Amino acid sequence: MEKNVKVILWGLGNMGSIIAKELFKKEGVEIVGAIARRKEKEGKDLGRLLNFDKELGIRVTNDAKSLFETTKADILLHCTTSFVEQVYYQIKLALEKRINVITIAEEMYNPWIKNQELAEKIDNLAKINNVTVLGTGINPGFVLDTLILALTGVCLEVNEIKASRINDLSPYGPTVMKTQGVGITVGEFEKGITDGTIVGHIGFLESVSTIAKYLGWKLDEIKQTREPIISNVLRKTSHVLVKPGMVAGCNHKAYGIKNGKAFITLEHPQQILPELEGIETGDYIKIKGKPEINLSIKPEIRGGVGTVAIAVNMIPHVINSTPGLKSMMDMPFCHAILSDYREWCQVLT
Amino acid sequence: MEKNVKVILWGLGNMGSIIAKELFKKEGVEIVGAIARRKEKEGKDLGRLLNFDKELGIRVTNDAKSLFETTKADILLHCTTSFVEQVYYQIKLALEKRINVITIAEEMYNPWIKNQELAEKIDNLAKINNVTVLGTGINPGFVLDTLILALTGVCLEVNEIKASRINDLSPYGPTVMKTQGVGITVGEFEKGITDGTIVGHIGFLESVSTIAKYLGWKLDEIKQTREPIISNVLRKTSHVLVKPGMVAGCNHKAYGIKNGKAFITLEHPQQILPELEGIETGDYIKIKGKPEINLSIKPEIRGGVGTVAIAVNMIPHVINSTPGLKSMMDMPFCHAILSDYREWCQVLT
Repeated sequence: MEKNVKVILWGLGNMGSIIAKELFKKEGVEIVGAIARRKEKEGKDLGRLLNFDKELGIRVTNDAKSLFETTKADILLHCTTSFVEQVYYQIKLALEKRINVITIAEEMYNPWIKNQELAEKIDNLAKINNVTVLGTGINPGFVLDTLILALTGVCLEVNEIKASRINDLSPYGPTVMKTQGVGITVGEFEKGITDGTIVGHIGFLESVSTIAKYLGWKLDEIKQTREPIISNVLRKTSHVLVKPGMVAGCNHKAYGIKNGKAFITLEHPQQILPELEGIETGDYIKIKGKPEINLSIKPEIRGGVGTVAIAVNMIPHVINSTPGLKSMMDMPFCHAILSDYREWCQVLT
Repeated sequence: MEKNVKVILWGLGNMGSIIAKELFKKEGVEIVGAIARRKEKEGKDLGRLLNFDKELGIRVTNDAKSLFETTKADILLHCTTSFVEQVYYQIKLALEKRINVITIAEEMYNPWIKNQELAEKIDNLAKINNVTVLGTGINPGFVLDTLILALTGVCLEVNEIKASRINDLSPYGPTVMKTQGVGITVGEFEKGITDGTIVGHIGFLESVSTIAKYLGWKLDEIKQTREPIISNVLRKTSHVLVKPGMVAGCNHKAYGIKNGKAFITLEHPQQILPELEGIETGDYIKIKGKPEINLSIKPEIRGGVGTVAIAVNMIPHVINSTPGLKSMMDMPFCHAILSDYREWCQVLT
């Protein structure tokens, strides 16, 4: 029998824990190491941390370097933070041990745009070590970039792109409420934007620049706005209460501009309970061109599970890829991996 | 300056003519030869045949063999007939001259399913000659197969797929009316199904088998039904009149069945003027799984222009590909090629 696909998991927060649970349901793939940031997880069994009713024999560690020294793996699934600068040294450790990397760090969907120097270093390291690095996720990674570009594949002309992802933040906890400005006053929201505590969506620069690149559009500028979504009604979740006149979320927009015209407009209004004001959640893409395309996905593709899914479904494509720092657009069309992972991977350690 | 991408076009019917016109609008790509079936086109200038107001210096020929002997090209754009058996000898001529091939022959989206022997021969010929063959189009090729699979890329589980493509045949002429049974009685429709003159959609076997393959589903059977769409109202186009009680089109369905259950259901009801009975044209995809995906594209992506677009947009991916007979699922994500074709192609003759 062929060997399983061996995965090291880095990051055992919300996303990392779901990835771990889902990988255990899949055939032909196994977790051989797990790295957590929090001290209290050091030395614990991964099964216990995931609330399984048995141990899995995988000790979680805080010491990434030692783990990479002692553990052979085909791929690192990386879900720590969002930013190229923060994840660079983590990804580097894996590459130097000839381990492929899939990361859900938002800026890694197109790391060239925020930090060309580190992107080049990652690309070189990957090539030297004959492995591949891919940044992916639901958004950035799919709905507001890769899917839009794939749809333009049936277009002869593309004149303008408008897309929005309207979601409901109700399932999320206090951290998300804070970074999206839910449950505060308009004045507090504006202060939060100024001091950087309210961030809106991370990934618009990466999505807009990727769309422009593959359509051959040389943009003059990518502009972003973050506006408070002021509620007209009472909105209430177990974590937060929004009275009329208060902020229910952050309407983050990005514009890809050329000659003063927005050729690309992406919107991601993130709020709790938009349906209370008659707004349907969904993913909406309009392509003005030849032909016109007017797409709706209702409700929106769920964020957490979507990101976990695309990360684990891309494992074979990344293992099979030529080496280097790659974009989703370099990868073959994705699809769900429902059968044995070993059927889909060409080269295993 | 780098050389243009050189295209030979085979087939100057409806689709081939649109491909020719569109390629002339694009940068970095040129038509260097054109093959037509009809005797009256032999020796004519391509510009004249396309109703351009000038000659293009490209003489259309009926003699494919001589053209391939004398003309160097990077790729053949092939749009003659739908069937593997009929296109095999045409594609072979190109491959033996080390010319890549994109074909819109429906069965070539997955030629292995109808004729494994010829598919193997094409694959071998392509590999020996270091070139690539791809079958594509809007359907099969994109809406009811590649797009569905790409959407499953954000799914952890897929339990069932239902999709339909509801279009309006009004723009089409007498040939399409005949093959879809528009404007006849139910009795005549049933006779037409029996004697094979009413064919419905070509491509369902290819779409269903491709979806099943990439989801790792071993189907017991692919079942197809073709039912008359009986009009309740008067429907009239410049080509055909459908009185109430008569047939407005063909509702063609395909089922991918395992253990008696349809895991995949694809519907393509093709008729004139469905909106007269309150039916909205569109492309609809429902994926039951984790997460659920409920997608609509309204109206449907236009068939003719969509097929032409994906055929010309895939040129760089096919030129850049490793050799062999490939599927859309082997290709990187497609996108519109709006800038100079030479920017997107790695190797040119």
